[in-house]
Amino acid sequence: MKIGFIGLGNMGEAIAKRLIDAGHELRVWNRTPDRARQLAQQGAQVASDPKQTIEPGGVLISSLANDQALEQVIDHELLQQLGKGGVHISTSTVSPTIAKKMTELHAQFGVAYLAAPVLGRPDIAAAGKLSIFLAGSPQAKEKITPILQAFSQRIFDLGNDPPTANVLKLICNFLLASNLEAIAEALALGQKNGLDRNNIAEIFSQTLLSGSPIANYAKQIAKGKFEPVLFKLALGLKDINLVLSTATASKTPMPLASLLHDRLTAAVAKDRGNMDWSGLAAEVFEAAGLHDGAQS
Amino acid sequence: MKIGFIGLGNMGEAIAKRLIDAGHELRVWNRTPDRARQLAQQGAQVASDPKQTIEPGGVLISSLANDQALEQVIDHELLQQLGKGGVHISTSTVSPTIAKKMTELHAQFGVAYLAAPVLGRPDIAAAGKLSIFLAGSPQAKEKITPILQAFSQRIFDLGNDPPTANVLKLICNFLLASNLEAIAEALALGQKNGLDRNNIAEIFSQTLLSGSPIANYAKQIAKGKFEPVLFKLALGLKDINLVLSTATASKTPMPLASLLHDRLTAAVAKDRGNMDWSGLAAEVFEAAGLHDGAQS
Amino acid sequence: MKIGFIGLGNMGEAIAKRLIDAGHELRVWNRTPDRARQLAQQGAQVASDPKQTIEPGGVLISSLANDQALEQVIDHELLQQLGKGGVHISTSTVSPTIAKKMTELHAQFGVAYLAAPVLGRPDIAAAGKLSIFLAGSPQAKEKITPILQAFSQRIFDLGNDPPTANVLKLICNFLLASNLEAIAEALALGQKNGLDRNNIAEIFSQTLLSGSPIANYAKQIAKGKFEPVLFKLALGLKDINLVLSTATASKTPMPLASLLHDRLTAAVAKDRGNMDWSGLAAEVFEAAGLHDGAQS
Amino acid sequence: MKIGFIGLGNMGEAIAKRLIDAGHELRVWNRTPDRARQLAQQGAQVASDPKQTIEPGGVLISSLANDQALEQVIDHELLQQLGKGGVHISTSTVSPTIAKKMTELHAQFGVAYLAAPVLGRPDIAAAGKLSIFLAGSPQAKEKITPILQAFSQRIFDLGNDPPTANVLKLICNFLLASNLEAIAEALALGQKNGLDRNNIAEIFSQTLLSGSPIANYAKQIAKGKFEPVLFKLALGLKDINLVLSTATASKTPMPLASLLHDRLTAAVAKDRGNMDWSGLAAEVFEAAGLHDGAQS
Repeated sequence: MKIGFIGLGNMGEAIAKRLIDAGHELRVWNRTPDRARQLAQQGAQVASDPKQTIEPGGVLISSLANDQALEQVIDHELLQQLGKGGVHISTSTVSPTIAKKMTELHAQFGVAYLAAPVLGRPDIAAAGKLSIFLAGSPQAKEKITPILQAFSQRIFDLGNDPPTANVLKLICNFLLASNLEAIAEALALGQKNGLDRNNIAEIFSQTLLSGSPIANYAKQIAKGKFEPVLFKLALGLKDINLVLSTATASKTPMPLASLLHDRLTAAVAKDRGNMDWSGLAAEVFEAAGLHDGAQS
Repeated sequence: MKIGFIGLGNMGEAIAKRLIDAGHELRVWNRTPDRARQLAQQGAQVASDPKQTIEPGGVLISSLANDQALEQVIDHELLQQLGKGGVHISTSTVSPTIAKKMTELHAQFGVAYLAAPVLGRPDIAAAGKLSIFLAGSPQAKEKITPILQAFSQRIFDLGNDPPTANVLKLICNFLLASNLEAIAEALALGQKNGLDRNNIAEIFSQTLLSGSPIANYAKQIAKGKFEPVLFKLALGLKDINLVLSTATASKTPMPLASLLHDRLTAAVAKDRGNMDWSGLAAEVFEAAGLHDGAQS
Repeated sequence: MKIGFIGLGNMGEAIAKRLIDAGHELRVWNRTPDRARQLAQQGAQVASDPKQTIEPGGVLISSLANDQALEQVIDHELLQQLGKGGVHISTSTVSPTIAKKMTELHAQFGVAYLAAPVLGRPDIAAAGKLSIFLAGSPQAKEKITPILQAFSQRIFDLGNDPPTANVLKLICNFLLASNLEAIAEALALGQKNGLDRNNIAEIFSQTLLSGSPIANYAKQIAKGKFEPVLFKLALGLKDINLVLSTATASKTPMPLASLLHDRLTAAVAKDRGNMDWSGLAAEVFEAAGLHDGAQS
Repeated sequence: MKIGFIGLGNMGEAIAKRLIDAGHELRVWNRTPDRARQLAQQGAQVASDPKQTIEPGGVLISSLANDQALEQVIDHELLQQLGKGGVHISTSTVSPTIAKKMTELHAQFGVAYLAAPVLGRPDIAAAGKLSIFLAGSPQAKEKITPILQAFSQRIFDLGNDPPTANVLKLICNFLLASNLEAIAEALALGQKNGLDRNNIAEIFSQTLLSGSPIANYAKQIAKGKFEPVLFKLALGLKDINLVLSTATASKTPMPLASLLHDRLTAAVAKDRGNMDWSGLAAEVFEAAGLHDGAQS
């Protein structure tokens, strides 16, 4: 199948290569033409503007930097050319707001907008092992699934509403960044108290970060049932207080530990000390106005 | 071997049972005698006070609630009785400060104090699959390793200085609690934007929380080399800003996302936007006065 | 002088009344006409749409809820009618971004856009005691100053660039909200430790909040010279640590105290412990990429 | 009256001078004798150890660095010497915990322990304008009030329980430090958006920080009645969101603004958007487990 491909950043380029390797015929465009030339050597046609990548009723894949780039490149003229039956697979990490706007705009031209943000970095893309969060029209999704399989290991179908896929991608990057912060604070505290950072990271990788421990907590929190009580919240607060006093003694600022202290203290002040410590999620849900704390 | 065992909370009880099942002879004591009785039915001797669990020059294991409990139970008289050649395996999650104090006190009586805090909850203990962070005298460690193997899957030797094992345990609980907060905020945002919480948790367990993704970041951060640049820090900030604007629109308070916003904004303001986003750790290390950012 | 007046919320209404009382002839418009009727009884003419409030080359005052309302009401047609020599006094708390956009748009029609956000609540406006942050064209400012004096006590001239006035207004609301949070946390801690909240507030009003104490700190921080050292930063950290331990003991979550703890800890970790404690500002400036810490 | 005086740091020295100037006879002691010598030239007797400053049944004033120093200097022997009828005026900023312990210990020797932490810096002390938070035995307070008047402008009587005075002092330093942070973030944002820092500070001193504005909020919050609604909480959130978007655009990390965003967002999510924005205190009180939000 001939596929239009717009946006050859590190991620776009890695995806495009996988598609060419899988035998797809690509017409590529990039704002700065240099990167397109490399793909040309591998057999891609290079278009001089975005619209020239389009085949009426065909498939367009975009991998762009942000909301602004997406809005600028995907204009009315381009959508008219793509037209009825066309499918636009938008792999960029953009806002749910722009995804909603795009979905409506595409519909005016008979084009299906599929949100398909990818999880993984360029090296994962090059290995064909991305995860894809896919949302949009069922027919369009069915049609393009074989294309996605050329560069992904897992495709999660999130239903018919494109913005939800973008929300999930943002949540993932948030969870990752949270771990970067948590790990950095943990390693700083360790180093200032006589531990070797590489040793800590190695132990993390063999224990907490080896798979199920944190995943199991995620499932428990999702259920909104903080049982069985395997580790009391009040004990969790005791330990975080020990973390903070160790941090104070060793002059290590740990803002995430402070946040946890305040969160758990509020939970105990509201008589939640005997719940399992995953019950701190009840505080989080309550603050968001999710009244039962449990899945609605 | 005859072993003294003090402290039969959920964790202590699970460990004690494993030891009995492995054929060890236990003399147990607990502040409230009820729990000791259950173990008696399985063959443990029940002592009427802590000192009666002691065999001179033998091994004592304690599993106590906090610093105060440890200091109260392990008094001079008890240590005198345990005496030269004795080993005290302290599995409790206590402060590095008390560990240091205990180490010095034990030494006065010729007793080796081993810090051996355990990672895992009581159900993991019951299955004999705890991880143990072990620190203290090499001879003592060698002597009691077979005992630890009865209830653990992995023993990490952290050297001769007991407090370091306690620091590592605290760091682990901090990393866990950070994930509880991150996951709860992520699920709240998802739920308020049309996603199903259980579905998100399931996807997390198959992707980010499936093992290596976060562990690899931990190793990279430990090295203090934020290369190769697989995902630019400035792009990370862009995504966290999208998280926050989605949170604002859906009235979801996300204090951890706010913390990340401020952290990454500071990094960009200090010209770190082109580093890999794991480089936010450079900010964390710098704030702790770790000057090079890298392992010292 | 005939003045057009758009937007009769609590604040707009109070300002309009002052103008009428001062003898100005007002043509008023409000999205919901009810509020306009009350002013009609006091002598204002009620316009049926925004454009009818306009006198070519005259003065228009707007008091609107937010960026969106401002953009919607102040359209091209209205600006054409206001035309050359016209002045638009925008008293709303809006973003610097929209102020910039509006300034440029108004210029196309020969209209001067003056940013004139007001500090004070409706009761202060009714008493004619608002403070006004004024920025924009010097000629326009001179022309309309007598009008502003009808409802203000102080007019601060911030120069020719309208957005700066909006930034200052936002900063003021931020400083106020920060005090709401600080006061609330302080009172909660006091109440949970046996003090009477009203008593604390009374003592605050006679001491710290009586005028100069905090204002003097503001001037010192602005200078970026954290001298003389009247209270060492390391002692400040000691006290905040006492605040937090008291908060921990009384189960009072104090996220702002936690933030201060982390800020001061970082300062001490970077060898700033011997500065005056106003030197925590050096940390804040540094994180913003303001390299010298001092005024540039 | 002969007065013992222990601790000649910057604050202690300034207080001691005031007492000498007022005609009191002082016997002073300081850990490092240099500072005592200066006072000797002004007529103070220099004691070679703390106990030598004591007159049985007399008055002792201490001005010490922290809990540890207080506990070390004020020992059993010293208290025995001070004895029945003696009064110890403790002006140091120490923890309520140590104040409680000291009160009980002093009672054993018939000595009254008065907590009398001072508000103000050494220059204020030198001018005799400190505020004193006084708590302890009524008879003792009455006896020593003339002494306190030599270096203070205001004495607030907080009742019979010494620790409450220490809590109030800590709360004051917390409120001050909160303003340091708030001001620093505000000035950084202003500077990065074209305003002059000194100009902002000057405007602050003439408006928000001129006395009553913030003090009035404190009284309203103390009452726990967030009426009348002069500025809606939802509008406050709007403004803080504008602060944050301005901060994002100008790369200014503002963690306190982030905290306010999360606080106000939670309030709106829980249907508190129509309260006066001082109602963010309702969130703070609720998190502390103060159930009605109002004064109990």
